[in-house]
Formats: sequence, C-alpha cells, structure tokens
Amino acid sequence: MLRAGVDLGGTKIQTVIMAPDNTILGSHRCLTPTDGGPADVAEAIAGAVRASIEDGLVDPLDVTALGLGSPGQIDAAAGTVSNAGNLPGWAAITYPLADDLFSRLGLPVKLGNDVQVAVRAEAELGAGRGYGSFLGIFAGTGIGGSVVMADELWLGRGAAGEIGHMVVALDGELCPCGRRGCTEAYAGRAAMETTARQWVAAGRSTALFDIMAAKGRTRLASGVWAKALSRGDEMAIELIDRAVVALGAAAGSAVNLLDVEAVIIGGGLGIRLGEEFVERIRIAAMDHIVMPAQPPDFRLAELGDLGGAMGAALLATP
Amino acid sequence: MLRAGVDLGGTKIQTVIMAPDNTILGSHRCLTPTDGGPADVAEAIAGAVRASIEDGLVDPLDVTALGLGSPGQIDAAAGTVSNAGNLPGWAAITYPLADDLFSRLGLPVKLGNDVQVAVRAEAELGAGRGYGSFLGIFAGTGIGGSVVMADELWLGRGAAGEIGHMVVALDGELCPCGRRGCTEAYAGRAAMETTARQWVAAGRSTALFDIMAAKGRTRLASGVWAKALSRGDEMAIELIDRAVVALGAAAGSAVNLLDVEAVIIGGGLGIRLGEEFVERIRIAAMDHIVMPAQPPDFRLAELGDLGGAMGAALLATP
Repeated sequence: MLRAGVDLGGTKIQTVIMAPDNTILGSHRCLTPTDGGPADVAEAIAGAVRASIEDGLVDPLDVTALGLGSPGQIDAAAGTVSNAGNLPGWAAITYPLADDLFSRLGLPVKLGNDVQVAVRAEAELGAGRGYGSFLGIFAGTGIGGSVVMADELWLGRGAAGEIGHMVVALDGELCPCGRRGCTEAYAGRAAMETTARQWVAAGRSTALFDIMAAKGRTRLASGVWAKALSRGDEMAIELIDRAVVALGAAAGSAVNLLDVEAVIIGGGLGIRLGEEFVERIRIAAMDHIVMPAQPPDFRLAELGDLGGAMGAALLATP
Repeated sequence: MLRAGVDLGGTKIQTVIMAPDNTILGSHRCLTPTDGGPADVAEAIAGAVRASIEDGLVDPLDVTALGLGSPGQIDAAAGTVSNAGNLPGWAAITYPLADDLFSRLGLPVKLGNDVQVAVRAEAELGAGRGYGSFLGIFAGTGIGGSVVMADELWLGRGAAGEIGHMVVALDGELCPCGRRGCTEAYAGRAAMETTARQWVAAGRSTALFDIMAAKGRTRLASGVWAKALSRGDEMAIELIDRAVVALGAAAGSAVNLLDVEAVIIGGGLGIRLGEEFVERIRIAAMDHIVMPAQPPDFRLAELGDLGGAMGAALLATP
C-alpha cells in the first residue's frame, strides 16, 4: 500500500511516492503553471504524480491514496481550496481540488495546509522527532509557521501558526499582508526583495539582481540570497541580518509564550542558508528568552525540499 | 468540605473561603509584610486565612484544604517557593511554604503560580467559561499571562505564558527584566512608573505623583492611573496609550500564532481601567490580526480582585 504526496507551491509542484515504512520510492518536481486556472494546476499535479510513480518504478495500482498540501484556505472535509493567491486564477474562488484529482487519478485525496503538512513531516520523520512541543518556522516567500504542543499540531480555529505576522516592530516596515511591523516584513523573501528593489531605486548597489539574472530567475530565490551572501554582497548581508533579528525576536516571543522544547527552521531560505542561519537566529532569540537557563533547541528542518510532499503523503495514511 | 484560597502578592494577601459549589463564604485582605522573611509572610498568610474563616462565620474544622497562588518559582510537588523577588527576604532562597503553613494551620497545602491560578479561576468560574482556548493577560506591576488550549492550561516546560516578554519593538524601551522592547516595558505598571519618573526628571509635569501622595501610596498603583486618566492628565494619557498599543500588538501576535477563541484581560490595571481599556486593546490588536473575519472575543476578567484567591482554592479541590 503506497501513498502519493503532493506539495503544491506557488513556484513548484513536488510529488513523492512513499512506502509503508515512510521511505521515498519515487519523486518528481515541476513548475507550477502560471497561466490558466485551477483545472490547469490540477492537470499539472496529476502529471507530476504519474511522473513520480514512473520515477519509482512502482505499480500504479499499488498507490492507493493521495495527500496534498496546498496554500490558500483548505476545507479538508469538503476537499476544497479557496483564495490561493499564489496560484493562477485561484485568488478569489473555491475549487473542489480533491474531487478533480480523484477523477483524474482514481485516488482518494486528502487535503491539508502546506505549512502544516510540512511540520507534520518534520514532527514524525524529521527534526521534530523526540520533541513533544516545538515551533516550526518556514522561511520562504512568506514566513509560515506551525505550533506542535503535546505531540499535536495546534490549529486553533484553523488559522494558528502565523508566526510571520507576529509583530516585532510597532510602526515598522510594511508587510506584504498590508500591516506594519510583522516578522515577514523583514524576513519574508518577497518583502526582502521589495526592500532590495527600493534600495536599488534609491541608488544603492548590489549583486543580487545580477545573480538572479545569471541564474535565469525573475525573483530573488533562496539560492540567489545564498550566493550573494557567499560573495559578501553588502545589501544581501544587511537584509539577511535584519531577517535574522526579526526571526529571533519572533522565535523568542513565541518561546516566552509557549515554552516549547524546540524551534525548527525550514523553508527555502532556511534550507539554503542552513545551520549557520539557524545558529544566528538562535543567538538573536536568546536576547529575548526569559528563561535562558532552559533554552529550547534550535534545529534545521531535516527533510529539505521533500518535507512538504512527505507530510502530504502522511495525510493520506489511513 | 470547604477550601481556603490564598492569593499571595507583593503588595497584598487576599484570602477566601470557598464552598463546594464555588461560592465565596468569607474573605480577607491585608498588606503583605515588607520586612522580615518567608516565615513572617507565612504568619501573615495564616492570620489572613483565619480572618476569612471568621469573616465567613464558618466552622474552622469544616475547612479541609488550602490552595495558594504565589509569585516566584513554584515546585508544587516539593511545596516550595523560590526566588520571589517581590516578597521580603525571598529573592534568592527556596522556602518550604506548604510545610510551614501546614504546621500553622493544620491544612494540607497545594501551591501554584499566581497567574496560573488566576487564569484557572477565570477559565472555570469567570470570563473564560465556554471558551476552549483563550489567552489571559494580567496587567499589573508586570504583565503576566497564561495560555489555555483545548480546555487545559498550557505550561510548556513550566515557564509558558510570558506574554509580557513578547517583543513588540526591536531595540525598544528597557524592560524591568533587563531586555529591550518587551511588552512589559510599555505596559507594566513598574516600567510605566519608571518612565513617568524619568519624564518628570526631564522637566515634564504630571498629576500622577500628587494623586499617589494624596492616596497615601508610594507607588503608582492602578487606582492612581485610573484617577489621573479621569482628570485628563497628559502624561498618564500618553503612557496608557503606549501600553494599549503594546498590549494590542502582543495580543495580536499571540492570536496570530495560536488562533484562540478569546483574549481575557485582567490584573490590577485591567480591573481598574475596565471595559474601555479592554475595548481599546481589542482595537489595537485588530490592526495586527491576520484573520479579521474571525476575531477572538476580548473580555474583561470577571472575578476581579478575588480571582487569584478563588483559583488558589480550586487548586485545593481534591
């Protein structure tokens, strides 16, 4: 009995085929369509699932269930995804993604929130093993988060985990969410890119956009930031410094509120910048933690780019 | 079977005698000793318990257990209180308060954290009834807090609930805890008094200290702030405005992280400033809440000055 897992992102679709012992038998990664609408996205997902089945050389009939982690608002019971602004034609509609994928693939589909499934994967298979409580911080285009307490993902009334919108600076920088002073305004890749473009427009220089162009990208992806840092680019250093300070304050605030055992840092930026980034965030957080004699562990997410798809496959576990 | 409850504070000792149906049969309030050491405090507690028994006209033999909420670090199993800096001679020692009170009163004693017992009282008997999850914010000398999730007080590894040390301003005001930018640095009564004294030393005028003197106080107690506000004192208005903004940001951050059903505001300052204060904090928090269509309720704590002692009595429930 094999499970397929899908991590549906604004940029990429990552799929895995997972064995009963949770090892990965096959995987596939492709770009998310940027045109069209939900049905086009669903077709791309179905193609990526089939490609991962082929990659794993498994019998399609052995795959019995599919889990999918999605951005936007998820109604797991109804099998719908709403208001997924990073997906084409999906900003203001509710789409029956589970039914659509069932008709394309013949598999029962369970939907989950993209960050929550990634956290579940880290909790069960990655850096969260052995911790009864931890905070997951996923630094990518935005700053996602999740809270695990008493071995359970805490969802509140469905919207818990918005670490990116914890306030670290009253009247601070404008956040992509439209509010001021959120952590994401300093540490989200989209906000950092906005700031970099403003600084360039104001006459400052940076290699960030040259590196972006050389990589054939149109956005400051995590790898662009990593490369600019390694080259000693001053603007990149300054913006990542700000991100570290903001993430440290948010992590420290959350630790003071919840006294969790660990903070796990993942997401594209976390994965690319790695252990050194995590250690810098730990040091920044320690400036704010009221029980420094009993600090939480700070750990890098272990599952890398496959974490989201692996957590999605766990969703499909009967 | 009656229970005694004690709320041990740095300024006052409040005791109650609680019936099996949780009604209050008697109560007493006295000043906490400012000289001596733990044994003197214990003697004052024992006297206050006896006074509440007399106040309630109950048979002392009907009182079968005592619960006590204390500042400092509590070891409930050992029955000790450590490092209670607001109590005389208690700053750097561990004292067997449960044993001491047992020998004075002949009652088995259960100890709890002062804020946690007050939150438990609000959860079971006050404004928290009917909410499965809420955040308690207790604004007094400092800013205490507690988190209730899935009907349980969440303690983390014992230190959860430090809402007062959530960071709202990177490189912000100095907090009594020695760190910068904490909520308490703007909204704790001790920090607000420090700022007021600095502003007066810098030449600004205020009625705060005249009101304090007229009330025979040596500190800016909550009632002093309330009176100064009602008189339109500019400095009091400005400092309370800052406190509201900081408490709103901290509450908003915590709601974004945990998506709780309610935020309950209590403590001396909360109780004195009342519903209007709560409503102002709600409005400030809404500036930061990412799911404004599904806001939490903001409620004033219902049990007033007796909440801590009532929660302590609940501790003693078999």
